[in-house]
Amino acid sequence: MIQGFDPRTGEPVGEPVPETTNADLDAIVAAAAAAFPAWSAFPRRAEALEAVADALDARAGELAAIADTETALGGERLTGEVARTTGQLRLFASLLRDDEGVSGGSWVRPSGSAPGYLDAVVTPAQGVTPDLRRINQPVGPVAVFAASNFPFAFSVAGGDTASALAAGCPLVVKAHEGHPVTSDVTAEIVAGALASAGAPAGTFGLVHGVQAGLRLLRHPAVAAAGFTGSTGGGLALARIAAERPVPIPFYGELGSVNPCVVLPGAAFSRPAAIATGYAGSLTLGTGQFCTNPGLLFVPEDVGLLTAIAEAVGASAGGPMLTGRIFAGYQDAVAEAEEHPGVTELAAGRPGRGPWGATPRVFQVTLKEFAADLAVLSRERFGPAGLVIIYPSVEDLLPVLFGLAGNLVGTVHVDTGSPEDMDLARQAVAVLQRIAGRVVCNGWPTGVAVVAAQHHGGPWPATTMPAYTSVGTAAIRRWFVPVAYQDFPPELLPLALRQVS
Amino acid sequence: MIQGFDPRTGEPVGEPVPETTNADLDAIVAAAAAAFPAWSAFPRRAEALEAVADALDARAGELAAIADTETALGGERLTGEVARTTGQLRLFASLLRDDEGVSGGSWVRPSGSAPGYLDAVVTPAQGVTPDLRRINQPVGPVAVFAASNFPFAFSVAGGDTASALAAGCPLVVKAHEGHPVTSDVTAEIVAGALASAGAPAGTFGLVHGVQAGLRLLRHPAVAAAGFTGSTGGGLALARIAAERPVPIPFYGELGSVNPCVVLPGAAFSRPAAIATGYAGSLTLGTGQFCTNPGLLFVPEDVGLLTAIAEAVGASAGGPMLTGRIFAGYQDAVAEAEEHPGVTELAAGRPGRGPWGATPRVFQVTLKEFAADLAVLSRERFGPAGLVIIYPSVEDLLPVLFGLAGNLVGTVHVDTGSPEDMDLARQAVAVLQRIAGRVVCNGWPTGVAVVAAQHHGGPWPATTMPAYTSVGTAAIRRWFVPVAYQDFPPELLPLALRQVS
Repeated sequence: MIQGFDPRTGEPVGEPVPETTNADLDAIVAAAAAAFPAWSAFPRRAEALEAVADALDARAGELAAIADTETALGGERLTGEVARTTGQLRLFASLLRDDEGVSGGSWVRPSGSAPGYLDAVVTPAQGVTPDLRRINQPVGPVAVFAASNFPFAFSVAGGDTASALAAGCPLVVKAHEGHPVTSDVTAEIVAGALASAGAPAGTFGLVHGVQAGLRLLRHPAVAAAGFTGSTGGGLALARIAAERPVPIPFYGELGSVNPCVVLPGAAFSRPAAIATGYAGSLTLGTGQFCTNPGLLFVPEDVGLLTAIAEAVGASAGGPMLTGRIFAGYQDAVAEAEEHPGVTELAAGRPGRGPWGATPRVFQVTLKEFAADLAVLSRERFGPAGLVIIYPSVEDLLPVLFGLAGNLVGTVHVDTGSPEDMDLARQAVAVLQRIAGRVVCNGWPTGVAVVAAQHHGGPWPATTMPAYTSVGTAAIRRWFVPVAYQDFPPELLPLALRQVS
Repeated sequence: MIQGFDPRTGEPVGEPVPETTNADLDAIVAAAAAAFPAWSAFPRRAEALEAVADALDARAGELAAIADTETALGGERLTGEVARTTGQLRLFASLLRDDEGVSGGSWVRPSGSAPGYLDAVVTPAQGVTPDLRRINQPVGPVAVFAASNFPFAFSVAGGDTASALAAGCPLVVKAHEGHPVTSDVTAEIVAGALASAGAPAGTFGLVHGVQAGLRLLRHPAVAAAGFTGSTGGGLALARIAAERPVPIPFYGELGSVNPCVVLPGAAFSRPAAIATGYAGSLTLGTGQFCTNPGLLFVPEDVGLLTAIAEAVGASAGGPMLTGRIFAGYQDAVAEAEEHPGVTELAAGRPGRGPWGATPRVFQVTLKEFAADLAVLSRERFGPAGLVIIYPSVEDLLPVLFGLAGNLVGTVHVDTGSPEDMDLARQAVAVLQRIAGRVVCNGWPTGVAVVAAQHHGGPWPATTMPAYTSVGTAAIRRWFVPVAYQDFPPELLPLALRQVS
């Protein structure tokens, strides 16, 4: 049985939810496989996605309230997250409707062409070269592993679900253990709305439990998988996906320390703003974001360090999502505390409850950091930061380049200073090789759901660095191209027939 | 030492070539890594690719003659293959120049946008949403494993080399043992032309030997790998790439049996043309193509079987590329010969020399085939085919769907017959799920190098089914997207600055 707990008290909330049995899992996947031909050809997928969004919106307050008992993320955040979730569903509906600006890109669609997300390409016959037409086709039934820290936007009805459904792939979601009741209620709404919209039975399924998740990932009928979660869990699942008799793509979005570089000019010209921004990003959602600014590289500037200490000192912690996550946070903080060369810079106000986390910021010199890079650059999931003090950008760059892959890299620069801009150019040259997104004069938390987004990054931030899990390009994960050679129009896929 | 042999005599040809030492391998990879920043920013990559093409064309006759001594593929084929190879290099140069029609696609580029292959996307700031601009960036130094059966087009200066260089990635090619001298001479020409065109030293390197190849694939500085070759070799290398401390994408294009379905109407209306086409495709290049039609599904039609027996009987074999490939062919043929339920339908004239292969075609009922699918659907690299006789398309489809992934699927249909067209629709629905390209009324051999090509397919035909190794889209394998958030124009990549 899977039991949810109230992070504010550590007490059980809601009824325990049974783990999915092997027989039930097999039946759910078989239903998804059976639904594939009909769902991939379903002519009203956009309407179905919008029906799901409408149904979730209609119960947003209730959903947020249930999720708050299981996550303690607060009503405001959770109501906003439901809106983000339904916004994602509608964004993919717009993509299917081929609405202008949703695909994005510097290319525009002429009349008589297929929607951009299908990546249709026609090379007409010429001499001995045959007529070739290529288009994206849905890959097959998909497995989605929900995240702990976004009970809606990266969970049962989240971005993976929206993009897979939009692509024409039935899917089976493995619920996160941290919010079983939220997952069940969401799934009921999603399944009901899809059925009302005429989607074939089996298009959407939900399973509970670690064993069910493993069996799902190994199931021969599953063609691809999406995952948002910890680095350890994600890498273990990626290995399972790779070791199947028929390996499948495993799109894992894992942990990340998201290095932020403050250049000397920026540190000198606006220490207070940087310190406040940093403390806010670090402690947002009790630091439980994969885009949390875990590493902050600052010049030897006493004013900035003082400002950071003040800002962090004024910050507040909160209850973490689960007892396990809280225990992990305590271990990570202890490791930093006990590390020679690392000292504490500041601490915020403790969070309440048995799993209440305290914001903690440590400091270390670049030299000490580089000497134990693997340990000190580890993710500390929660509101813990490490400030690394560098003597010069020249010294910093090779250390930065030595970091493992990240979702986000950030540079703070005084754009009015030619010297700082020159250093920024050098820092960006490195950051763009170790991160999937580079932010200038901002903070890594906050991931806009737009066409140009890339929420990805080099291993181990993601297991498939060419793909994003946020934004319209996320649909690409659920496609494979197929080329048709010398086909009579009547046998071509519908979208290719229309291409001139 | 690596020794080439003349397939016509089995005797050594040319001087033995030394295997690359660990120290030399490390130096070559280090040079490639050092060249990455300069080559990825090199403003005249198109000119450099064209210089390589010109230099190869200038020595085409000599190259073909050398390759003929090591492969016995014949002067006409090899001269044509050099032209294909230089055509590929020029095609990627055209892509870099953003020439119309080369990117292909149903989208067109408006003025003030980045070239299509960079997949640039701009989402302007709106409200609290930041300005986001995404663009493809070269992934880093690349390893390329050359194939035995295309000493030019899938070898030292082949498609992987052209696409990687075009993407801005330096590369190190591991030569195939079957044509060491051809590889060395080609590499000398490529390196010389690149140097003359001003490319940084280290942009291109060549290594010899299995151990060097393994060390190359494991090298921390290598960011991605391309491979064309056998299923066994490719899967072993894919595993090594996945088990690195930092796994890298391994784009393997492996073996394939390329099922061809002859529908009843086609079999009835043009048996002779189908039989001749089949025998020609099966024995082309002594059957040494990954697109060889290994499995032919035909209805119970005596006329077609007789025609196939005649056409195959009139066909001729030839010397295979290496002794090892010939031994593999003999084993595969013996396995089919000794299989209960399998009988011989026809044999062609034997090829000459110690490694001369004889075209062999076997037949089996659909029922017997399905009963031992794994064994009977194995690739038999060379001019050996299996004809599977099906009682009805209804019986055929589930067996077809049970096949492993393929590069190509083919359907032969009488387009004037509504019944046949209806069956074709059903066959295509299955073929497009088990193959990356579907051919109508043609044969799988012959892979056009164009924008709409997809030379890929489900596992194990390729290890990364979303990618092609032929055509302009092959460049996508060497990119990762990076998003830039709220960047001042001066810090953006050049191509994104130009996007309006």
